[in-house]
Amino acid sequence: MAEPRDTIELYVRVRYAETDAMGVAHHTSYIVWFEEARSEFFRQIGGDYAKLEQRGIALPVAELTCRYIAPARYSDRVVVKTRLKEVRSRSMSFSYEVILQETGERLATGMTKHICIDSEVQARLIPPEVRALLRS
Amino acid sequence: MAEPRDTIELYVRVRYAETDAMGVAHHTSYIVWFEEARSEFFRQIGGDYAKLEQRGIALPVAELTCRYIAPARYSDRVVVKTRLKEVRSRSMSFSYEVILQETGERLATGMTKHICIDSEVQARLIPPEVRALLRS
Amino acid sequence: MAEPRDTIELYVRVRYAETDAMGVAHHTSYIVWFEEARSEFFRQIGGDYAKLEQRGIALPVAELTCRYIAPARYSDRVVVKTRLKEVRSRSMSFSYEVILQETGERLATGMTKHICIDSEVQARLIPPEVRALLRS
Amino acid sequence: MAEPRDTIELYVRVRYAETDAMGVAHHTSYIVWFEEARSEFFRQIGGDYAKLEQRGIALPVAELTCRYIAPARYSDRVVVKTRLKEVRSRSMSFSYEVILQETGERLATGMTKHICIDSEVQARLIPPEVRALLRS
Repeated sequence: MAEPRDTIELYVRVRYAETDAMGVAHHTSYIVWFEEARSEFFRQIGGDYAKLEQRGIALPVAELTCRYIAPARYSDRVVVKTRLKEVRSRSMSFSYEVILQETGERLATGMTKHICIDSEVQARLIPPEVRALLRS
Repeated sequence: MAEPRDTIELYVRVRYAETDAMGVAHHTSYIVWFEEARSEFFRQIGGDYAKLEQRGIALPVAELTCRYIAPARYSDRVVVKTRLKEVRSRSMSFSYEVILQETGERLATGMTKHICIDSEVQARLIPPEVRALLRS
Repeated sequence: MAEPRDTIELYVRVRYAETDAMGVAHHTSYIVWFEEARSEFFRQIGGDYAKLEQRGIALPVAELTCRYIAPARYSDRVVVKTRLKEVRSRSMSFSYEVILQETGERLATGMTKHICIDSEVQARLIPPEVRALLRS
Repeated sequence: MAEPRDTIELYVRVRYAETDAMGVAHHTSYIVWFEEARSEFFRQIGGDYAKLEQRGIALPVAELTCRYIAPARYSDRVVVKTRLKEVRSRSMSFSYEVILQETGERLATGMTKHICIDSEVQARLIPPEVRALLRS
């Protein structure tokens, strides 16, 4: 098991299309931001998720948890703080914290677990060079 | 605490817009189906969620969990089986099971917890007539 | 050029996730309904769009127009009336009308034009058996 | 009628959730980017769209056109170049061009027309100070 890496941050502005009739960001928007925070994580460690997919490797979400504490609204700037929590031979998990940039208020926390699959949708080992990157 | 009600079912066909570059329904699609299954639940017990909102009452998602077991694809018909798990004075929770209609295969399971808020986004008691409906 | 076919209808209920902070269905929701109306059109003429894609053929949107007349709201039932407007050797176009079921009010009208491409994203002729179906 | 303003630019990275089973950004994603480009336009001229809405004024999309020239893919950086095309007493329109940042290739062009409404969803004059900003 790898040691958790430092936190990476994704900055997002709440889109109008992400709001709902309650006047706040719909609860699925946070899940999309988590995904983009992972994209950013892979870019920052030097592993491009798009290139992984071109090699027939994917890391779909196997499990997802989110706790919603306070709403985000249209045009709000939020920061998604993301940490790699755990790396195993065939899976990995991330934790997330969504912060309202203006006030520092915590809006949500979450977790995702991912399994590594090949192009036949079969579970496989995370490629060694990806594990090496994750542990660096 | 109320006894759980029987299961209600929502039938959905996977939309093209719900798919992603992996060729399967994006993981947020299931969360949207959960929400529509709740809409259907309220309709079936005779309480229209739209009317609740017109009275200034909302039941936002406070917590969300989803486990993804197998993918759904474009044009697949899925059933979302939904149960009211628990009703408390200020909150309630639902559980979900997403089934591929053609094969009966279980694609995902999930849970949402909701708190009752007023138009000032303050926690409040679930209105007694709503609790009565939920327990009926 | 083919004669336009009769109208097919897709019934949709506005999802909560489709609403925005104006309290109405977001303008992209109609575009998603158009797409599902096309899916339904292909099913009704006996040509499954999913099967077309498995053969490496796709009909992406090349052009899109929508006029918004009146808003749809959460839980509203709408009908999307769809007609095949024109079939050419490498393209086709559809027209749409979105009607509020309860009142018969027209909410929006639209048009999409599609070109036929192969798995290399090159323009190609619409396969003859698909053209035959479209003209039947 | 006002003279068109200079072009403003919105930089977007294609999100994984925006892709579809064709492996490219879904055609509704461009419409969402157009909307965010308008948000950015209002910010840059010193008029915050969120504040307009708090005053009970909205500028919903009345008409929308988009031509799709080449696809955008996951993780691509795109620029949305936006111009205010026309301002009338009760309506305004914008034009858009979506450019792939890496190559300068034009991926799509579009247009939206907006009418000004009040909180009763009645057409109204664009407030004079907003028109003044638009013309500045």
